[in-house]
Amino acid sequence: MKKIVLAYSGGLDTSFCLAYFKSKGHQVHTVLVNTGGFNSSELKSIEERAYEIGSDYHEVLDETSNYYEKCIKYMVFGNVLKNNTYPLSVSSERIFQGMAIAQYANQIGADAIAHGSTGAGNDQVRFDMCFKVICPGIEIITPIRTMSLSRQEEIEFLKNAGVQDDWEQKQYSVNKGLWGTSIGGKETLTSRYALPESVYTPKSNSTDKEIGLTFQKGELVAIDHEKANPIQLIQQLNAIGLEYGIGRDIHVGDTIVGIKGRVAFEASAALMIIKAHEALEKHVLSKWQIQHKSQLSDWYGMLLHEGQYLEPFMRDVEAFLDNSQNRVSGTVYLQLKAEHFSVNGIESPFDLMQAKFGTYGEENNAWTADQAMGFIELLSVPLKNYYQLEKTELI
Amino acid sequence: MKKIVLAYSGGLDTSFCLAYFKSKGHQVHTVLVNTGGFNSSELKSIEERAYEIGSDYHEVLDETSNYYEKCIKYMVFGNVLKNNTYPLSVSSERIFQGMAIAQYANQIGADAIAHGSTGAGNDQVRFDMCFKVICPGIEIITPIRTMSLSRQEEIEFLKNAGVQDDWEQKQYSVNKGLWGTSIGGKETLTSRYALPESVYTPKSNSTDKEIGLTFQKGELVAIDHEKANPIQLIQQLNAIGLEYGIGRDIHVGDTIVGIKGRVAFEASAALMIIKAHEALEKHVLSKWQIQHKSQLSDWYGMLLHEGQYLEPFMRDVEAFLDNSQNRVSGTVYLQLKAEHFSVNGIESPFDLMQAKFGTYGEENNAWTADQAMGFIELLSVPLKNYYQLEKTELI
Amino acid sequence: MKKIVLAYSGGLDTSFCLAYFKSKGHQVHTVLVNTGGFNSSELKSIEERAYEIGSDYHEVLDETSNYYEKCIKYMVFGNVLKNNTYPLSVSSERIFQGMAIAQYANQIGADAIAHGSTGAGNDQVRFDMCFKVICPGIEIITPIRTMSLSRQEEIEFLKNAGVQDDWEQKQYSVNKGLWGTSIGGKETLTSRYALPESVYTPKSNSTDKEIGLTFQKGELVAIDHEKANPIQLIQQLNAIGLEYGIGRDIHVGDTIVGIKGRVAFEASAALMIIKAHEALEKHVLSKWQIQHKSQLSDWYGMLLHEGQYLEPFMRDVEAFLDNSQNRVSGTVYLQLKAEHFSVNGIESPFDLMQAKFGTYGEENNAWTADQAMGFIELLSVPLKNYYQLEKTELI
Amino acid sequence: MKKIVLAYSGGLDTSFCLAYFKSKGHQVHTVLVNTGGFNSSELKSIEERAYEIGSDYHEVLDETSNYYEKCIKYMVFGNVLKNNTYPLSVSSERIFQGMAIAQYANQIGADAIAHGSTGAGNDQVRFDMCFKVICPGIEIITPIRTMSLSRQEEIEFLKNAGVQDDWEQKQYSVNKGLWGTSIGGKETLTSRYALPESVYTPKSNSTDKEIGLTFQKGELVAIDHEKANPIQLIQQLNAIGLEYGIGRDIHVGDTIVGIKGRVAFEASAALMIIKAHEALEKHVLSKWQIQHKSQLSDWYGMLLHEGQYLEPFMRDVEAFLDNSQNRVSGTVYLQLKAEHFSVNGIESPFDLMQAKFGTYGEENNAWTADQAMGFIELLSVPLKNYYQLEKTELI
Repeated sequence: MKKIVLAYSGGLDTSFCLAYFKSKGHQVHTVLVNTGGFNSSELKSIEERAYEIGSDYHEVLDETSNYYEKCIKYMVFGNVLKNNTYPLSVSSERIFQGMAIAQYANQIGADAIAHGSTGAGNDQVRFDMCFKVICPGIEIITPIRTMSLSRQEEIEFLKNAGVQDDWEQKQYSVNKGLWGTSIGGKETLTSRYALPESVYTPKSNSTDKEIGLTFQKGELVAIDHEKANPIQLIQQLNAIGLEYGIGRDIHVGDTIVGIKGRVAFEASAALMIIKAHEALEKHVLSKWQIQHKSQLSDWYGMLLHEGQYLEPFMRDVEAFLDNSQNRVSGTVYLQLKAEHFSVNGIESPFDLMQAKFGTYGEENNAWTADQAMGFIELLSVPLKNYYQLEKTELI
Repeated sequence: MKKIVLAYSGGLDTSFCLAYFKSKGHQVHTVLVNTGGFNSSELKSIEERAYEIGSDYHEVLDETSNYYEKCIKYMVFGNVLKNNTYPLSVSSERIFQGMAIAQYANQIGADAIAHGSTGAGNDQVRFDMCFKVICPGIEIITPIRTMSLSRQEEIEFLKNAGVQDDWEQKQYSVNKGLWGTSIGGKETLTSRYALPESVYTPKSNSTDKEIGLTFQKGELVAIDHEKANPIQLIQQLNAIGLEYGIGRDIHVGDTIVGIKGRVAFEASAALMIIKAHEALEKHVLSKWQIQHKSQLSDWYGMLLHEGQYLEPFMRDVEAFLDNSQNRVSGTVYLQLKAEHFSVNGIESPFDLMQAKFGTYGEENNAWTADQAMGFIELLSVPLKNYYQLEKTELI
Repeated sequence: MKKIVLAYSGGLDTSFCLAYFKSKGHQVHTVLVNTGGFNSSELKSIEERAYEIGSDYHEVLDETSNYYEKCIKYMVFGNVLKNNTYPLSVSSERIFQGMAIAQYANQIGADAIAHGSTGAGNDQVRFDMCFKVICPGIEIITPIRTMSLSRQEEIEFLKNAGVQDDWEQKQYSVNKGLWGTSIGGKETLTSRYALPESVYTPKSNSTDKEIGLTFQKGELVAIDHEKANPIQLIQQLNAIGLEYGIGRDIHVGDTIVGIKGRVAFEASAALMIIKAHEALEKHVLSKWQIQHKSQLSDWYGMLLHEGQYLEPFMRDVEAFLDNSQNRVSGTVYLQLKAEHFSVNGIESPFDLMQAKFGTYGEENNAWTADQAMGFIELLSVPLKNYYQLEKTELI
Repeated sequence: MKKIVLAYSGGLDTSFCLAYFKSKGHQVHTVLVNTGGFNSSELKSIEERAYEIGSDYHEVLDETSNYYEKCIKYMVFGNVLKNNTYPLSVSSERIFQGMAIAQYANQIGADAIAHGSTGAGNDQVRFDMCFKVICPGIEIITPIRTMSLSRQEEIEFLKNAGVQDDWEQKQYSVNKGLWGTSIGGKETLTSRYALPESVYTPKSNSTDKEIGLTFQKGELVAIDHEKANPIQLIQQLNAIGLEYGIGRDIHVGDTIVGIKGRVAFEASAALMIIKAHEALEKHVLSKWQIQHKSQLSDWYGMLLHEGQYLEPFMRDVEAFLDNSQNRVSGTVYLQLKAEHFSVNGIESPFDLMQAKFGTYGEENNAWTADQAMGFIELLSVPLKNYYQLEKTELI
């Protein structure tokens, strides 16, 4: 008999794991980590199912706040969109779920830790990495990955174990989280097709509207000047955006296991916050801050996506990002429209675009024409010299 | 008497320059470089005005094809969007105009070369840099920059010189080019406001439609499988996109002269081509190609924007980009909607997302569960060791 | 009976593999790939041993020229020193050995391909990667890795198989190649100690001497103005440098398998060529070329080290590097001293440091004082504006 | 009459400025900023000269500690060597001198601030940038730059003003600082020649010796286990290194004014500290920390060199660097030899190269052969797929 901590979601795969472990006589602690994607009625129904199948102890760990503070915040600071598109909605959540489960396993002195991932995706890597690092002495058990059962065999097993639930085959696999919902299925298995509109949250509004997102040191602190904590604001903004059908797209990219993968998502709040934040930064950060922060954040996003959150380089980047946000305060005005949005403008005490500094293309009140010409003269020195050495190379 | 080559656009500033030079008794060659923004009737009317004011010789240089081959092509290969937004529409054109004028000045043995830029913007830098490098012995004369006349004084001068044109103050300054139109005025002088819809090309269509853009080695070669040369295709795609109001946005960023500047633009074809091209690359390039090409292209875009096209590093990047496009062939399907578009999917013989390589998250037919676990075991070695040295640091 | 291609070096491990395969009744083709590290008498003696142990067919593939053209050349163009120290001497050779063997296996229609690497190092990854990519259908067999025999057991097996060779335990494991010799042993297994002088090639000269290395488009073409082909020049320069004890150092870094590794090396020619080449580039390349080439080459070196030579990104970098070398022509003068060397200076028609362009700190003959002041005025605009917004932040 | 703050070094140029300003009836505050390059007798003699020529008030500002804390420390954290060679000895000092003078000018309510730089070098940019940002309302006066006097004219002027000093023409211009001494003259004006040995501090020792440098969180805290404050340690290490003639080299690179410049230097402590620090980091930092820290620090060094210390991006990098040094603690053993040194090894509680983690190439005690093979299998997936699509492209 082993004391097993099972990352439990209530779905077919983890329900099979639970029944399977019980059939072998193990003690099973089912753990669900909520990073903002479950409401209380969903949590309750999952708990009921867990006990019904035979969980010895079911625990819900609420990691939403931790996930925001240690991850979402930095994805906003870095304007992280994987492959210029995907806000790493589910990718980043998995890691915080994995870390919480690993710590729980340590706390209760578990013999083993289990999850329901297959051998074909990224999640196995994210989970296993957390477990191997945080609870290195604890065995990892992954029946779905190692036993290669068909869906039908799993249902059969559960049925024989007296679990009569209705495990209907859903056409799309949906993962809902605070930072976005990912949707996979039929079309995402092709390179050619987008998902039908029906799989997304239905639009209910198409009247253009301006909203104001207020940031303080890089963090969203108010919507339309109404303050709330960041997690509430994200949820609120998601609700607003989904009315407009904002934030739908498809991510294609390299998985950790080496193949290309494609997944649709709906991440209304994430996209509006990142685009608004980025617009504000264009006004308050220096050219070099913008350029290098963008490149560094690209790497941050890549490693985060690949389950390398615990890599110490990530902490160094976060220190950089924290420091860069000192002046990223102000309000960004977005125009919401059917299925998209645009940035109208910003207001910030740190706005570097100010008439007193000169007006681009119109008034050089901070310098004279002679100074501008001197500037260009020296700016052209390297190229003048370069081309003087070999006239013919010119262009 | 000097033999002056004047970059002539037909507007108030360059018309003043022309009249002013003639009043001083100089010989003036007015030159207009067309990089795809002027049609023949516009060219004709500018020529007439030039001769009317007193141009000794008016020349139109068509650089469209050169501009495409040596610049637009690479902006597509690099998916270049300055500050993640602006396709460098006008920024890049100016350089090709400057280079053509400089070469013309060399050819005709000019004493001086003149342009109508103020001392407050980027264009003075782009023009002057080209001139200083390509025709280093030729004097640069910029009356608008050095004389600081008001608009009214320029009109007065022209009137006295017998030029009776109707120089009405336009509310917005519009620069139309092959790769997009830039629009400045009232709102872009603020940080807060977007331009009114009325300044953009009116929309005329809002029926969702899918179009297919076919690329060969990174270059657009067909729209809906109809082949044409890239310049025609860009013009055609612009026409299609503008019907939908696609491609409007505002660019904010650091100018070469050190202040922040803001400009609106309408770049329908540029945005659709770049987004389609980028989507195709996600399917056919390797992870490392995508990551590094993106970062390198960011630098390419920055230097191009800043008038550093002649910097030899740019040629090195172009060699990199050329090589990277070997497999960027295939068709990308875009869904056109009112004011925006999305990528439906792609088809390519080089698509690395193929069922035979395994299906992300579902089937690991290219490896076994044991191999996946071995992979993760070694992947976690550095972090396991790192955290073993100091348990408490963990997260 | 399988037709096995065995990467054979004549050492204990691969000799065991050979005898072991023969004992199982397989047909074994022993292949040695020479990338410049073996002379003809060494090759002959290895061949004799191979046949003595029972090789069915022994083949020597000379890949030296290919290795130079496709790899060493680019390591020079990129001034590649892993972790700022190691010229990737053995790391890069292994890949060219692996690729040649894989192609040979394809040619002869082998059933399996075998090498003698353990499961603890980088070479298994380099070899296996080449085999999996180039001959994906051919089985890989690695007895040393999978059987975990002790050295004594291998010797015993060989003795029983009638191979009576004297397999003395060498204190240091030495790998000699064209681009350097790597040396591992006692001290490199610690973090604390350097190797004793006795393991290196003995010094025989300590009279300071200047030598001139002439490069053409980035490639070494002459030593002291005596032309030869690059491979001869590398061998010649190695001989010169070793007289002085030049090029010894220790590399510490991350292995592909995730742990840190430490290895000593002696790479006289490699270090002199790279440092000379880099010095020349400082005179002939632009600031941006130097900066970005250096950063890109760092990535090239990392991936090359990690066995990712076949990654398509590498070809893109090579295109960049090729283009960057257009003007890297000239002679670099090195001062050779006991155990080290320094750069005296360079001569090049493309030298951008020329009195006519102005003398640093002394004469600004390419601009006036006013122009310099104008330059600084505009250069300081962004910072002036930045600090004006919040005086107190100043430093 | 203006109240002028003059950056005074006691040399001909600034002595001329002082006499010149006095001749015009101005009130002159001579200020010398010591960043560690002057001893008390030098300071005294400069003060005497200042008063002799007519300084109204002479002030010595000791910025050594500030310079260490805000700059040298970060150059060590970043292993900053400009163009892979130069520890930015004088470049970085100038900025701290400029900032201190600017603040002094603000404090005393100066009308103007003056320095003796020419229009041909970097220092004018570094000084002016500090002044324009920190005391934007105060006029900058630079007689040497704007009056273009010959050395003889300056001496003549001083003579007429009653200053009879012996202004002999020194063959080499030497700038001594805490982080190194720069030396310019005859040979550095060519690209071809090194300086004669005689210009460097004479060697006095050539007996090989091992010394231990102990770092704590990236800062040097002890030499041979004798603790002292970092400034004392730098001075002490300089003394040790100069005995051996360690730390001499020539820097060639792009100046801020656009031409290439060449300068010799002697920076014994700087080079030993940086190389020791870098060696320690190879043992205690992760691969990704090393890679990205190196690239980011390159940019830090470039901007620092170019007088952009006040750029806010620099503070972001410093936050990154600070964080990265948490484990950079331990002792590095250097072998000192005639004119060079090497790293023998390191000792650190955070050393990631530990036998228990496995021994590179010998023992994979942290994983099995099967796991290693699984690792390689998945590692090769992207390339296998890539090449499967087009067999012929192979290498």
